[in-house]
Amino acid sequence: MTAVTHEDVLAAAGRISGLVLRTPVLEISPGLFFKLELLQHSGSFKVRGAFNRMLSAGSLPDSGVIAASGGNHGLAVAYAAKVLGVRAEIFVPEVTSPVKVAGLGALGAHITQTGAIYSEAAEAAAKRGAETGALAVHAYDQPEVVAGQGTTGLEIMEQTGGVDTVVVAVGGGGFAAGITLGTAHGAAGPRIVAVEPERIPTLHQALRAGRPVPVKVGGVAADALGATQLGGLAFEILSGPRVESVLVSDEAIVAARRTLWARHRVVAEHAGAAAYAGLLSGAYTPAPGERVAVVVCGSNTDPATLATT
Amino acid sequence: MTAVTHEDVLAAAGRISGLVLRTPVLEISPGLFFKLELLQHSGSFKVRGAFNRMLSAGSLPDSGVIAASGGNHGLAVAYAAKVLGVRAEIFVPEVTSPVKVAGLGALGAHITQTGAIYSEAAEAAAKRGAETGALAVHAYDQPEVVAGQGTTGLEIMEQTGGVDTVVVAVGGGGFAAGITLGTAHGAAGPRIVAVEPERIPTLHQALRAGRPVPVKVGGVAADALGATQLGGLAFEILSGPRVESVLVSDEAIVAARRTLWARHRVVAEHAGAAAYAGLLSGAYTPAPGERVAVVVCGSNTDPATLATT
Repeated sequence: MTAVTHEDVLAAAGRISGLVLRTPVLEISPGLFFKLELLQHSGSFKVRGAFNRMLSAGSLPDSGVIAASGGNHGLAVAYAAKVLGVRAEIFVPEVTSPVKVAGLGALGAHITQTGAIYSEAAEAAAKRGAETGALAVHAYDQPEVVAGQGTTGLEIMEQTGGVDTVVVAVGGGGFAAGITLGTAHGAAGPRIVAVEPERIPTLHQALRAGRPVPVKVGGVAADALGATQLGGLAFEILSGPRVESVLVSDEAIVAARRTLWARHRVVAEHAGAAAYAGLLSGAYTPAPGERVAVVVCGSNTDPATLATT
Repeated sequence: MTAVTHEDVLAAAGRISGLVLRTPVLEISPGLFFKLELLQHSGSFKVRGAFNRMLSAGSLPDSGVIAASGGNHGLAVAYAAKVLGVRAEIFVPEVTSPVKVAGLGALGAHITQTGAIYSEAAEAAAKRGAETGALAVHAYDQPEVVAGQGTTGLEIMEQTGGVDTVVVAVGGGGFAAGITLGTAHGAAGPRIVAVEPERIPTLHQALRAGRPVPVKVGGVAADALGATQLGGLAFEILSGPRVESVLVSDEAIVAARRTLWARHRVVAEHAGAAAYAGLLSGAYTPAPGERVAVVVCGSNTDPATLATT
């Protein structure tokens, strides 16, 4: 029995309905679907978990909410706090892209940029939260967050009429874990292909070690997938039989991001293109006739980096 | 009795099914929908009309197809010709953006860049087509082209469950005319808000004059909406009671394009943002509760022009 269930995802869907977008699905060729979650409010799926965590808490303290983030989770918490009219304090590491820091400021969040990587910013946020009493909204390792992200999985199954496989990127693992729960009631359900950059293999190493272990963090997607260790909740769910872990190179991620724009007119950040890289690079090859949904999950990027002239 | 009917649009939908994408609809706020036609093959709706024209012709001549275009129609004809395995010759004016010329080359089309504006390229294409016997695929003023573009209207009504109003950009008028036919069987049907740049008012002037008249062509959207005169078929349809003509400034188009990226993570070309500019600028203001679909219709642009840093 896991700490989060399909029923929690259904409850989250009711809770956040009307606050998040039902992002569209595009069938780019027969049986191959893009879930365009990068069109979500705040530019990523993270707002689903943020709203679910905040609305599950009952009343929020005067000190509001606090979060540490590579950027996308912070943007989501800041967005949700703004909509709900509460204070948001966001800790981001120095690796966070200027686009994301600027976005946080525009949403009125109180920003502290500290630490080389996510885990250091997270430590500082935990210390600060203990002082202020603000509600901590974790980037991935809280049941309400996992359940909120899982609502993407519910939508994928409804919008596609069902798929055999969902391909999704993994950082801390909350999104992939939520989708695993959201796409099925029990052991039966679509295969979850969990794609990670070779340079941030949190799930891959956890599966080898039999538990979450620290990994080195680097590469083009580090500002969004840069957790140093898989979440405990995510491990419990992603170590199940439906999940297949694959790795992709940074070059494959860059190429997938370019193809998403050049062929499909979708502007994703590197992390948002990682899942598609899993397919394009051949790290995962669907069988003939297999119905596959690829989650394109983040767009907090500068489009200038896709210049064509 | 017009030369093109709702039934022609239904027939077109059957003909081009599987060759064009059913582009997604995103409800960005309650009752406000984006039809994301800019995610279409070749980066615009034009491929719908191109396929319908080519497939309606029966067998195609050895000399293939020929078209004149500000860019998007040429890309669509080149794309359709490649899929159908026939030769494509495309005439573009000098105003055509480098992005579009490069795209035509990548699709294997034979390109001639000639004339200052679209109408001059069109003359050259007509002369050349008379010599080679290639099938002419007009950018807007052919029944099969209007019917093909109209399939977008069918999808809008199905995907939204019905709207009161469709907001769409007008150049030569084929797309707006097709959508007018596609969204309704007869006189009753959604209002069509036809948005034009102030600097290319082909419909606005035609409605004033009681017939299509030449207009001066200029401004940021000229490479896609730069017809010098409304099509005759389009006039017949767009002079009906369901259509409301509004004008927007270039500044409003630029602002709408920036908002589409900053808030909605959609990268449109200027012409593709013109319809949304009609709403954002207040040129058309929906009533409370009015259900509105905005067609975002083209993405053949360099994302570098949306640089945020």
